[in-house]
Amino acid sequence: MRGVIMYGPGDVRVEDRPDPEIALPTDAIIRLAATCICGSDLWPYRGVDRVDGAPMGHEYVGVVTEIGSAVEKVAVGDFVVGSFFTSDNTCEICRSGYQSHCVHRTPIGREGTQAEYARIPNADGTLVATPGQPGADLIPSLLAASDVLGTGWFAAVAAEAGPGKTVVVVGDGAVGLCGVLAAKQLGAERIIAMSRHADRQALARRFGATDIFEERGREGVARVKELTGGLGAHSVIEAVGTQDAMDQAIRSTRPGGHVGFVGVSHDVTVDGQRLFGSGVHLHGGPAPVRRFLPDLIDLIWERRIDPGAVFDLTLPLEQAADGYRAMDERRATKVLLTV
Amino acid sequence: MRGVIMYGPGDVRVEDRPDPEIALPTDAIIRLAATCICGSDLWPYRGVDRVDGAPMGHEYVGVVTEIGSAVEKVAVGDFVVGSFFTSDNTCEICRSGYQSHCVHRTPIGREGTQAEYARIPNADGTLVATPGQPGADLIPSLLAASDVLGTGWFAAVAAEAGPGKTVVVVGDGAVGLCGVLAAKQLGAERIIAMSRHADRQALARRFGATDIFEERGREGVARVKELTGGLGAHSVIEAVGTQDAMDQAIRSTRPGGHVGFVGVSHDVTVDGQRLFGSGVHLHGGPAPVRRFLPDLIDLIWERRIDPGAVFDLTLPLEQAADGYRAMDERRATKVLLTV
Repeated sequence: MRGVIMYGPGDVRVEDRPDPEIALPTDAIIRLAATCICGSDLWPYRGVDRVDGAPMGHEYVGVVTEIGSAVEKVAVGDFVVGSFFTSDNTCEICRSGYQSHCVHRTPIGREGTQAEYARIPNADGTLVATPGQPGADLIPSLLAASDVLGTGWFAAVAAEAGPGKTVVVVGDGAVGLCGVLAAKQLGAERIIAMSRHADRQALARRFGATDIFEERGREGVARVKELTGGLGAHSVIEAVGTQDAMDQAIRSTRPGGHVGFVGVSHDVTVDGQRLFGSGVHLHGGPAPVRRFLPDLIDLIWERRIDPGAVFDLTLPLEQAADGYRAMDERRATKVLLTV
Repeated sequence: MRGVIMYGPGDVRVEDRPDPEIALPTDAIIRLAATCICGSDLWPYRGVDRVDGAPMGHEYVGVVTEIGSAVEKVAVGDFVVGSFFTSDNTCEICRSGYQSHCVHRTPIGREGTQAEYARIPNADGTLVATPGQPGADLIPSLLAASDVLGTGWFAAVAAEAGPGKTVVVVGDGAVGLCGVLAAKQLGAERIIAMSRHADRQALARRFGATDIFEERGREGVARVKELTGGLGAHSVIEAVGTQDAMDQAIRSTRPGGHVGFVGVSHDVTVDGQRLFGSGVHLHGGPAPVRRFLPDLIDLIWERRIDPGAVFDLTLPLEQAADGYRAMDERRATKVLLTV
């Protein structure tokens, strides 16, 4: 099969790779319908994380082509959505809603879903079948559910977005934009998207943002304070993963408010004294997308949400390198690869 | 009146100080019935925080002797309990339960309650009157409610201690011990006190601890993991304020679990990547004791809890310096000063 390999910073190639095979009785093999490039794939692409000949990709939707002998909940032919950590969905951690920390989790990134086929370990606890075969128009949104929507949704839940709340979203990438969408769906009263890009601002508005602030850092915090009677927002989503974004998120939150952080932390430290003084709640990490998948699939199936709009560039898998370049150069927010 | 002044590390004196006076119409003056020395008073005593001729003390119970013209909710003659930040108890932050971050808060430490009298700003929103004049036996517990009980209680609430939960308490000072008591009252199933001191272990057991672990750091974490099937505790109280304690707390908590931290942070930093990977909830800071005071006073009045047992040394105010020494040298957990 064909699949993406990253050999080093900026060096992405589509090559022949061995077809994946069932290795464990709990595995399934899927044929990808679509996959995509993640903002986090840019960390190694830019040389921030080390990479040396690794298969890439951890977002996926597709059709089950083969199942191991122990798989009972998905069948060959099912159209399925999964996410970036596999989970048994039965352990105590999974049952508490934290499937991304499942005691049997495996990272799908190791399999590499920017490819024609992928092996999905823990298939029963990882994959969720859609009610039927989706039309082509639904595929981008189902693919978004696999990561960016599920992650943005978790961030909004972690930030306790809801009725009567003012929500700030730091980060206007696909996850931040999905955080806006989630906050809207969760009933937030006011949703402030921090963004300087006209196209992302427009999508944020479409997803439910009531305000767009272009200021960053202390100026951004000051705008939020100004809007909230000096108190700060009830809920802040941090969807970047940098020190500046985390600082801005904590400073923008009122005492007793909630920060939901899902940007993969890179060299971030939180000052204990500042956190102590802030009185905020801090919660985040790799999103337990599996917790939300059934509901997200329903919302998408009923066409009540359209998170697939985050994809602003679609390319065939063979042109994955162009997709990486476009995201790296910020010419695209999120690239969908057709398989 | 007589009152405590700290002139520098190790230099505590009881001196004549001017009687406090009503400065604002929202002030009250109280005559202290008892006051005490806080673990946090040891930071300047040990030279970690700077101090230069400051009045000391922020814990207090006593009788109202005078009120400003705007005070309506407490009257001269009332026996009252307050806490270390004054609050209006009417602003949006107070109404959300975060009175320690009230937009009009003032630190009582500035007034210095290790004294015969004290001025209490924001009297209506800060002081809670007891149902009547308490017997002498209730005074230590009411005084504990002023800070250590209220703080331990907040930590247990922040850690979401409750039925079915395993709770770990890092720190066996008065606040940690009160955290044990709070976890028990909140219905926690298993309460692990981390302690190496026989007297504190005994009090932890009396307050509801089901297990005592003497290990610290990684060994302490390993014991907790061992007890919880490798997962970690649901709820962890951090009642020290050091890097080691915070690290131990986060590592002892399962993904999706809650860390409630109330130790005043000193040179603590939280690594973003570790926090991201841990999946825990982190919440703490200066406890909104006022939120809990009415309920805590009821529990004490009905003699259902006995947090006053944390005081293991009682001295007259004039011997405050001996009290500081005893706590500094760990000969006492918590010193009550009679006034």
